[in-house]
Amino acid sequence: MPLLVVGSVALDSVETPTDKRDNVLGGSAVYFSYAASYFTSVRLMGVVGEDWPAEHTALLKERGIDTAGLQVIKGGKTFRWSGKYHDDMNTRDTLSVDLNVFEKFDPVLPDAYKRCEFLFLANGSPTVQMKVLDQVGGPRLVVADTMDLWIKIQHADLMKLLKQIDGLVLNDSEARLLTGDENLVRAGHTVRKMGPKFVVIKKGEHGAMFFSEHETYVLPAYPTENVVDPTGAGDSFGGGMLGYLASKGNFDPRTLKEAMAYGIVVASYNVEDFSLDRMKRIERADLDTRLAEYRKMLSF
Amino acid sequence: MPLLVVGSVALDSVETPTDKRDNVLGGSAVYFSYAASYFTSVRLMGVVGEDWPAEHTALLKERGIDTAGLQVIKGGKTFRWSGKYHDDMNTRDTLSVDLNVFEKFDPVLPDAYKRCEFLFLANGSPTVQMKVLDQVGGPRLVVADTMDLWIKIQHADLMKLLKQIDGLVLNDSEARLLTGDENLVRAGHTVRKMGPKFVVIKKGEHGAMFFSEHETYVLPAYPTENVVDPTGAGDSFGGGMLGYLASKGNFDPRTLKEAMAYGIVVASYNVEDFSLDRMKRIERADLDTRLAEYRKMLSF
Repeated sequence: MPLLVVGSVALDSVETPTDKRDNVLGGSAVYFSYAASYFTSVRLMGVVGEDWPAEHTALLKERGIDTAGLQVIKGGKTFRWSGKYHDDMNTRDTLSVDLNVFEKFDPVLPDAYKRCEFLFLANGSPTVQMKVLDQVGGPRLVVADTMDLWIKIQHADLMKLLKQIDGLVLNDSEARLLTGDENLVRAGHTVRKMGPKFVVIKKGEHGAMFFSEHETYVLPAYPTENVVDPTGAGDSFGGGMLGYLASKGNFDPRTLKEAMAYGIVVASYNVEDFSLDRMKRIERADLDTRLAEYRKMLSF
Repeated sequence: MPLLVVGSVALDSVETPTDKRDNVLGGSAVYFSYAASYFTSVRLMGVVGEDWPAEHTALLKERGIDTAGLQVIKGGKTFRWSGKYHDDMNTRDTLSVDLNVFEKFDPVLPDAYKRCEFLFLANGSPTVQMKVLDQVGGPRLVVADTMDLWIKIQHADLMKLLKQIDGLVLNDSEARLLTGDENLVRAGHTVRKMGPKFVVIKKGEHGAMFFSEHETYVLPAYPTENVVDPTGAGDSFGGGMLGYLASKGNFDPRTLKEAMAYGIVVASYNVEDFSLDRMKRIERADLDTRLAEYRKMLSF
């Protein structure tokens, strides 16, 4: 089943302890859609400026991603983010954020997008996320991401959104911020009680936790010694997870856990190079092979 | 098969964000031996002062732990440690360390201890660990723990020890310190190449990683919302792991992974109360029940 993602499309400048890249393809909706494209057909909704290189759109189309919803704002500049990773490669400093055209992102879905049954609301304000949700007719599964900024400055809108979605994906520090609880197991269930049927807490190099009314579990990250650039790991995790769910057309507990595992495996590839560079070199079969290794790793 | 552990026996004062305990039973060899006692017969070698409460020895004996090797130094004082946990309960500050009788700990094994085939060298200087190793006749499996202090001040002795042991257990920050590598997957294998056949890196609330020539894996911690006091988690992990191995009388790859899982499960109980208070209230059956839940959690 097709999967719709609405979120940021960006040009990133990334510095790691050993290397750097300027103005490379990035953004939550980009990482998400590329990762999801290994599993299902993806419709991308986002906004860029006139400086957006056509080759980036071509790259997404090559993987079958529908870019009809990618608005190009005349005279505008694309969202830019730059960051620098610490030696541990698990924490980073944001050096600059220029929202540019993303600041006034006003997603008006193409008609063909409005009947998507699987919807992912990637990085964006709760107001924008809600606006997208209102345009989609009877989605079967709605999952959103959020971030510290919205927890701080649009708390009321976020709380409203949480009551209208099925799943929320957020990282560990965001879960702590949203709940005021340092214990992630308690924090996950507290967030769940704010509305979503399930909550996923992403822990970076330590994997991800899942919470529903009857389940609590944690899956570790796939161990890789080749961490080149963690940017987009969380979004590619989400893309792998939702892409798999959409491909199965259901989200029962068993499928959700398999989807978490696929998300972890996709993210483990994503971090092995800058931007989408590692992902460009893999096929679905690579994901299946690593998933089998991952499954074996967790069997005893 | 009996398992011999040599390490610290202490009185700990522990402060958490919500509670505190003074002068409670602690020490690496205590946590280790109590955890191991659910699986196999344990022989404890350590040293205490005249201030050591007899009830602590009685508690260890109740679980069948052989305390013939627990030296009591007349006129001496027991090793004392005090620490304070941060809000995240995963990091702590050491407030004070009084080595007392542990400073001149000179373990001379009782004859009955010298034929132990499974040996764990818990917290102690590499010199002392080596001295113990020299007294044991033809052990089948020798695993050691180490800590930042010895990596810094007894590096050469530690490197010599690493060539004579089968396994090394250390935590993530110690692995980074010992190798100068921030990536734990690479660090684990670098430590392995220093001598031990296998290396276990403990990651606290994030679980543990295993490294051998042909295997690299990570197992998450069992998620518990009830983290009261993490003191001794690493040692009870080691005790569960080595206890299980000794009970099976082998350490093939499959048994090692099961042992890791048991270590994780024992540690998850240990953190649910101060000192050994939670452990006192469980039986082997509780460990098996939680292990089954843990195994199910990791199955997809």
